[in-house]
Amino acid sequence: MKKVVTFGEIMLRLSTPGYAKFIQADNFNITYGGGEANVGISLAQFGIPAEHVTRFPDNDLGKAATSLLRKYGVQTANILYGGDRLGIYFLETGAIARPSKVVYDRANSAFAQLEPGMLNWEEILKEAQWLHWTGITPAISDGAAKSCLEAITVANKLGLTVSADTNYRKNLWQYGKTAREVMPEMVAGCDIIVCSKGDAADMFGIEPKKGEGSGFVSVCKQLMNRFPKVKKIVNTKRESISASHNTLTGVMWNGAEYLKTPMHQISPIVDRIGGGDAFMAGLIYGLLTYNDDQQALDFAVAASALKHAVEGDANLVTAEEVIPVMKGDSSGRLVR
Amino acid sequence: MKKVVTFGEIMLRLSTPGYAKFIQADNFNITYGGGEANVGISLAQFGIPAEHVTRFPDNDLGKAATSLLRKYGVQTANILYGGDRLGIYFLETGAIARPSKVVYDRANSAFAQLEPGMLNWEEILKEAQWLHWTGITPAISDGAAKSCLEAITVANKLGLTVSADTNYRKNLWQYGKTAREVMPEMVAGCDIIVCSKGDAADMFGIEPKKGEGSGFVSVCKQLMNRFPKVKKIVNTKRESISASHNTLTGVMWNGAEYLKTPMHQISPIVDRIGGGDAFMAGLIYGLLTYNDDQQALDFAVAASALKHAVEGDANLVTAEEVIPVMKGDSSGRLVR
Amino acid sequence: MKKVVTFGEIMLRLSTPGYAKFIQADNFNITYGGGEANVGISLAQFGIPAEHVTRFPDNDLGKAATSLLRKYGVQTANILYGGDRLGIYFLETGAIARPSKVVYDRANSAFAQLEPGMLNWEEILKEAQWLHWTGITPAISDGAAKSCLEAITVANKLGLTVSADTNYRKNLWQYGKTAREVMPEMVAGCDIIVCSKGDAADMFGIEPKKGEGSGFVSVCKQLMNRFPKVKKIVNTKRESISASHNTLTGVMWNGAEYLKTPMHQISPIVDRIGGGDAFMAGLIYGLLTYNDDQQALDFAVAASALKHAVEGDANLVTAEEVIPVMKGDSSGRLVR
Amino acid sequence: MKKVVTFGEIMLRLSTPGYAKFIQADNFNITYGGGEANVGISLAQFGIPAEHVTRFPDNDLGKAATSLLRKYGVQTANILYGGDRLGIYFLETGAIARPSKVVYDRANSAFAQLEPGMLNWEEILKEAQWLHWTGITPAISDGAAKSCLEAITVANKLGLTVSADTNYRKNLWQYGKTAREVMPEMVAGCDIIVCSKGDAADMFGIEPKKGEGSGFVSVCKQLMNRFPKVKKIVNTKRESISASHNTLTGVMWNGAEYLKTPMHQISPIVDRIGGGDAFMAGLIYGLLTYNDDQQALDFAVAASALKHAVEGDANLVTAEEVIPVMKGDSSGRLVR
Amino acid sequence: MKKVVTFGEIMLRLSTPGYAKFIQADNFNITYGGGEANVGISLAQFGIPAEHVTRFPDNDLGKAATSLLRKYGVQTANILYGGDRLGIYFLETGAIARPSKVVYDRANSAFAQLEPGMLNWEEILKEAQWLHWTGITPAISDGAAKSCLEAITVANKLGLTVSADTNYRKNLWQYGKTAREVMPEMVAGCDIIVCSKGDAADMFGIEPKKGEGSGFVSVCKQLMNRFPKVKKIVNTKRESISASHNTLTGVMWNGAEYLKTPMHQISPIVDRIGGGDAFMAGLIYGLLTYNDDQQALDFAVAASALKHAVEGDANLVTAEEVIPVMKGDSSGRLVR
Amino acid sequence: MKKVVTFGEIMLRLSTPGYAKFIQADNFNITYGGGEANVGISLAQFGIPAEHVTRFPDNDLGKAATSLLRKYGVQTANILYGGDRLGIYFLETGAIARPSKVVYDRANSAFAQLEPGMLNWEEILKEAQWLHWTGITPAISDGAAKSCLEAITVANKLGLTVSADTNYRKNLWQYGKTAREVMPEMVAGCDIIVCSKGDAADMFGIEPKKGEGSGFVSVCKQLMNRFPKVKKIVNTKRESISASHNTLTGVMWNGAEYLKTPMHQISPIVDRIGGGDAFMAGLIYGLLTYNDDQQALDFAVAASALKHAVEGDANLVTAEEVIPVMKGDSSGRLVR
Repeated sequence: MKKVVTFGEIMLRLSTPGYAKFIQADNFNITYGGGEANVGISLAQFGIPAEHVTRFPDNDLGKAATSLLRKYGVQTANILYGGDRLGIYFLETGAIARPSKVVYDRANSAFAQLEPGMLNWEEILKEAQWLHWTGITPAISDGAAKSCLEAITVANKLGLTVSADTNYRKNLWQYGKTAREVMPEMVAGCDIIVCSKGDAADMFGIEPKKGEGSGFVSVCKQLMNRFPKVKKIVNTKRESISASHNTLTGVMWNGAEYLKTPMHQISPIVDRIGGGDAFMAGLIYGLLTYNDDQQALDFAVAASALKHAVEGDANLVTAEEVIPVMKGDSSGRLVR
Repeated sequence: MKKVVTFGEIMLRLSTPGYAKFIQADNFNITYGGGEANVGISLAQFGIPAEHVTRFPDNDLGKAATSLLRKYGVQTANILYGGDRLGIYFLETGAIARPSKVVYDRANSAFAQLEPGMLNWEEILKEAQWLHWTGITPAISDGAAKSCLEAITVANKLGLTVSADTNYRKNLWQYGKTAREVMPEMVAGCDIIVCSKGDAADMFGIEPKKGEGSGFVSVCKQLMNRFPKVKKIVNTKRESISASHNTLTGVMWNGAEYLKTPMHQISPIVDRIGGGDAFMAGLIYGLLTYNDDQQALDFAVAASALKHAVEGDANLVTAEEVIPVMKGDSSGRLVR
Repeated sequence: MKKVVTFGEIMLRLSTPGYAKFIQADNFNITYGGGEANVGISLAQFGIPAEHVTRFPDNDLGKAATSLLRKYGVQTANILYGGDRLGIYFLETGAIARPSKVVYDRANSAFAQLEPGMLNWEEILKEAQWLHWTGITPAISDGAAKSCLEAITVANKLGLTVSADTNYRKNLWQYGKTAREVMPEMVAGCDIIVCSKGDAADMFGIEPKKGEGSGFVSVCKQLMNRFPKVKKIVNTKRESISASHNTLTGVMWNGAEYLKTPMHQISPIVDRIGGGDAFMAGLIYGLLTYNDDQQALDFAVAASALKHAVEGDANLVTAEEVIPVMKGDSSGRLVR
Repeated sequence: MKKVVTFGEIMLRLSTPGYAKFIQADNFNITYGGGEANVGISLAQFGIPAEHVTRFPDNDLGKAATSLLRKYGVQTANILYGGDRLGIYFLETGAIARPSKVVYDRANSAFAQLEPGMLNWEEILKEAQWLHWTGITPAISDGAAKSCLEAITVANKLGLTVSADTNYRKNLWQYGKTAREVMPEMVAGCDIIVCSKGDAADMFGIEPKKGEGSGFVSVCKQLMNRFPKVKKIVNTKRESISASHNTLTGVMWNGAEYLKTPMHQISPIVDRIGGGDAFMAGLIYGLLTYNDDQQALDFAVAASALKHAVEGDANLVTAEEVIPVMKGDSSGRLVR
Repeated sequence: MKKVVTFGEIMLRLSTPGYAKFIQADNFNITYGGGEANVGISLAQFGIPAEHVTRFPDNDLGKAATSLLRKYGVQTANILYGGDRLGIYFLETGAIARPSKVVYDRANSAFAQLEPGMLNWEEILKEAQWLHWTGITPAISDGAAKSCLEAITVANKLGLTVSADTNYRKNLWQYGKTAREVMPEMVAGCDIIVCSKGDAADMFGIEPKKGEGSGFVSVCKQLMNRFPKVKKIVNTKRESISASHNTLTGVMWNGAEYLKTPMHQISPIVDRIGGGDAFMAGLIYGLLTYNDDQQALDFAVAASALKHAVEGDANLVTAEEVIPVMKGDSSGRLVR
Repeated sequence: MKKVVTFGEIMLRLSTPGYAKFIQADNFNITYGGGEANVGISLAQFGIPAEHVTRFPDNDLGKAATSLLRKYGVQTANILYGGDRLGIYFLETGAIARPSKVVYDRANSAFAQLEPGMLNWEEILKEAQWLHWTGITPAISDGAAKSCLEAITVANKLGLTVSADTNYRKNLWQYGKTAREVMPEMVAGCDIIVCSKGDAADMFGIEPKKGEGSGFVSVCKQLMNRFPKVKKIVNTKRESISASHNTLTGVMWNGAEYLKTPMHQISPIVDRIGGGDAFMAGLIYGLLTYNDDQQALDFAVAASALKHAVEGDANLVTAEEVIPVMKGDSSGRLVR
């Protein structure tokens, strides 16, 4: 099978042990994660060849981040080394009514310092079938945005499927351009997007119209009008009962039908980070595996639900572990 | 803002890791805590100047206990050093139907060996606005009881607000006097008390009368009759569904109204110790901040609920973290 | 009181910390466990003299396994040392919809290499009142099966009570004989058995008959017809809502009555392994202590429920800890 | 072989991890130790039946301390339960020029509250060949001293070998009697003692005389004159180059010869506590095994040297591990 | 006693556990350190009132760093909050021939973003007797350099003693000025400096002259000629036998005499970071305590030697712990 | 550069933390190692493309072992999955005179169950320049021996350099053939071997002859006579002063010269396992990099010395870290 290429920043994640608050912690657990790399790692566990493209500083931390990708079976041949530093995020895990808390320290990262032309996308994508990116990358820096657009352009030229999680993070857009200026051209090159009503409003100025079905469907129709290459728009609805208990449902508009999954009860949450990335990886796997949007969506939500029981950013479950949950068995009975 | 002074014993808390039973444990997590110091630490996180007064042995453990207070921003200038030992309590954390278990080893502590006159309360309280004590202190030893009465007397003279958590612990009263003999004179000097119906019966022989509203209100009316300085009596109602799941509601009688908070669902509990102290700290903060008993009570219960998600004896959340929960948002959504 | 003798294999249990998946783990928590030894350890915590008989390799791991039994007060005087290796099982603890997962590496263990005649059962059982075994032992090897039958035969001769947990594990029966060939002669020597409808079908070909009460009762009647020495047949019904939340109910047919316990809610599960062994130990304790099958059964299920809050294979709670839960108090209130 | 009985206090040992100072530590490693119990544990590893007699509080810590003895194969049938608390000592491990540091919290322990007559020494010692005690026990309390004298008296009556480590700790003698008052009657019942020149001076007022060989020999001669039952006096000479590097040599006067061992280089020290107890256990093993004082002494010093490479209070090496070192091979070559 | 004020950057220190290389580490130990703050913390352990002045980002990491200072008794009232981030350094601890390795990630820190005028030095220094700074501060940024010069100027005006560790780090000087341009004006305001021959050459262009005693003395004479306020110049000579074994000797030129300490053997090293800062703190304590340069120097080197046995950046030993080592007793004998 | 292929068994290594003895340990540190894979991992750190060929069971442990190789940059495309189990070795780390201790549990491993023909060596080796194996592989099983001979034969055909570490382990040869029967044919296909005098005697019956230089040289000459393809024979001389202090020297006979390296002092040892494999990897790197046997040998011994400061089986240092040590700088000075 041809590989899926993911592109985006990876940060050093430093999380306090257990439920310790930052002020209490005497050590940090280390992992490395990023929205797009999390997708790549999850795909590799599902048996899909995956490669991640990013830029790391040329030091021991950059090497350690690469080694994590390799450990989980993600190809790393096209990672660039250079620039000033590795972005970091600090995580304090909440419980009950206490939220988890993230402190970012990602400015001036090697990835943010990417410049157009640094990556040879023709070469990188020539053996690939799929390119995945997220709205975080164009938010980081002008260079990152332009590199990402290069990738999408080449992917389109080579006929790859392109997916994106629009993922609007208001705080990130600091380099002088807005999402509304940058994102449309990029989304125009996509086949499949994850996009919430909020993102549609914030990034594209699209609001639900009355009389066009549910608000989500209305938004999807408008998005597809504007971006005719886009064939499927998906989203997850997360209800947050507490920091320890969420529910999750997936929805899709595929241009013809509005599909919805059963609601998953997720309690008690082990690690909430990367739930959306696990959904995306599940969706890519599902679409590549099942000739059926509903099954693909069911797989994606089941994968995302399972992620909440996995420590770290990335979903490390196999497809064999997802399938029973996708089919409705959430009983978690001991496997011998 | 003038400081709040808390007075009471601090013990070395040694807890088994995770859910290990004592017989399984190969190491103990270390913290230092005590009902009154827990209030001081929580107030310091809320930005209220706080000082704790106690007595520690003049050894490395006493110094380490002091350093914990300082770490969390509590003033320690009037701590005495001397006496034989630091009291200890051992904690095994339960789950489901297995209760948490405390083994005390607190006899003959430096604090229990306090003698009247050792502490210069005029000096200690001269810059303060509030004195807080609990019913544990007079239970420990005659010297501790007398020192506490000295403090209350001076506080009354200097016009400080005085609060107490009556907190009757039958097992503690071992030095020859009973709570009924000792407590009334001390409570008489208080403005605000936390007192359950059980404590009122055990310590003051007060039982609810028929036809005086709910039992709690009836008890409060009698308490206020007997102790006319007391203006507000508060309590929490804890329902223990299991060691992992409690609910919590706060109530107050302020002489005019019976106030009640919404019920908080607390599951799964991270650390139940110090829930009452977190409530008291929340109440002090609330009363100092809001000109409204209901808001103060809501803040107090929200703070206490959040404490159950914090490891250790003391509530380390900030006021910013309490406010959404106090306003009804217990969703625990990730904060970036 | 005379001792209870348990006989069976003990494995090195290596579990990943927290909820780490195998691929994530950098260390394993160590304990030693086996279905029958878990019963012995639990009985020792209840104050019942218990001895475990097994075979370990004559190396540091065998010694460490023995030391665990001794630590928990189980007698070890008749353990044999010899053979090739200690069986191992690897455990990854699940949560939510992610199941816990066991990887066995138990072939060619010192225990599997047991031969008839190696153990002097006349000597071992002469001071005992009870022998307990499970269906795992005869599944491991022909030698283990024959050793177990020797034990049952001697126990019957000496007038001991004999109990068994039939515990059919299809994957284990690899040495050329089937459970249907081996088990009947062994169960024929038992007074009390734990046996599910599934085990009755798989091991003895017994299916519920219509018109004989509930399926379980029908099966029990047929079992007692076939094995007239058997006086009580018990079982637990476990509902698995998720890997973190189970419910548990106990049932018994004592030849006259169908007894059932209240349902226990078990959430969030700390360690699910050994729940059945804790039930068995509770049943033995209950039958030895109460002159009442219902109380014995209530104690057994309460003990099993509590086991889910204890780390490791064996139930380390005391009878004093079980009694309130058995009586319906699952509130888990802090014990000072 | 008949058992060796050791008698003395066991404390909870709480040590900071690694080289953390008390003020830095967030957790303590747990073990349980005491000079005499350490001897018993070491003997059990050498294959000598050993029983320890002591008194623990009747709580979870007392049970955990007992479980440690059982784990290491020491018999515990005559341990008493009662009294107020378990003594504790806190340990900070030094390195280089920074000394290890012990903070004691042992007053009012269950053991110190022992009273004469509580222990049935006739029963305890009837199956024993050897009784071992140290000078710490009579230093703790009058009751402990009297209990110990009872034990010695019965041991003498039953013909056991009696050994003692005189071990003068000035700070301990707080209950109103002095070592010079108490110790002579007790040492008079001994066959073998460990006694330094310092102890001889402090406890018995014996100083080396000129012209009687080395100071140690002169002191030994006087001791044997005064205590004619004593047949062997041994000691270790420790040179402390740094907290990480010591040397150790053993010496003995057996009434006829002055024996000395080679000097052992001990670097880098893992855990220095219990080095003397390991020596004593080695000596008992050596005297019971070899018909040769020099070999016994060589074994004892080799055992003590090895203890410095073992974490915790007690020496967990086997005789097989001591023998090469005793024979001069300290190369520590990997054993496969 | 009046306080000593230290001024400089504090970084988050993240070190791999044990001897793990970066690529192996799954967690980092957390502490916070900086050359000047390390001096302040050490002085606080010696009982000298100390305050540290710095700038932290206004986030949880900045608060945690402040809490560490408070924990160790350092005053923090004049710390500024603002700016982008907390500087970080990553540490991998070496052994034998493998060096420890530091990866810096300190650019754009809140401290580097200091601007002149932000700190009110008149206010900060009015109750102080001593100001200490190092050559790292002026290397970080122009704003930091100017802030430091402000501090020196005010200190000179108020008559404080001013000390500096010149500490030339070539890699740091990145903002467009060189040490030779910036340092002279700052050193001109100092009374006491730590300065190696290398630093004198690199920063001031001063080389030893023939016939002026040892090279160090010659350099000192020239430095004092150029900076007449400087009265004492000190340095340590470190011989690095391996990453685990160093030796250390202190030297001083006080304008009249060349003083030298005995050589300290330091093996095996626990944590080498902060050895120079411990020396400086020892020197300040020594000069404030002893009316004798040799004693002050001896204390300083003994303190530095002991630091190598303490985990973390800062020297946590007390003066009582230094004194025996200063007097020549490096035996590290157990302290009970 | 073309890759180096290593072939051999990898075991799960479970080591007790710190210096804990097996009986003390509550957890094991996990890594995966084997003599040949250790060479591959080290080469990958040096920047040499490396691939390891082995057979793992098709379960989570096999996957985890593969992930470790990938993490460290070793190619894994030709690993086979199947067979019964992963071999395990248990390690207890010694210190001072206490040796480290290994308990093997490797029988019936997936690797031991290899059969000739399972591996397509033509395919595996076609892009390689070097094949490395050790004498452990032919000792494990007949199938492993034959697979290894297949590899050597193909390597010879394709013109690869072949190296071997003869590594005679008497205990391993259990399957019915002796080293003397099996090894000669395999060594005959080698260009470079590591072989001690002991191995030469045990495996080939070759003893030093008088008058042929040092014993090693005499043995080498005879070996080269018998195996004319062999061009270089190397060895290390390890002196074991204690478990914590070894010295190491490398020697080579290249057919013309007897080369020797300086002696490296190695103290205090962090992890002694894999020292020989690190030497071998260093030698391969050295020979591929330097056109000089002495430099290659110097690099190899320096690499091996450094390995003793690295935790785990494999040497994780880079060539940049080896070079200073190879050039004589063992000072271990901090690298910033």
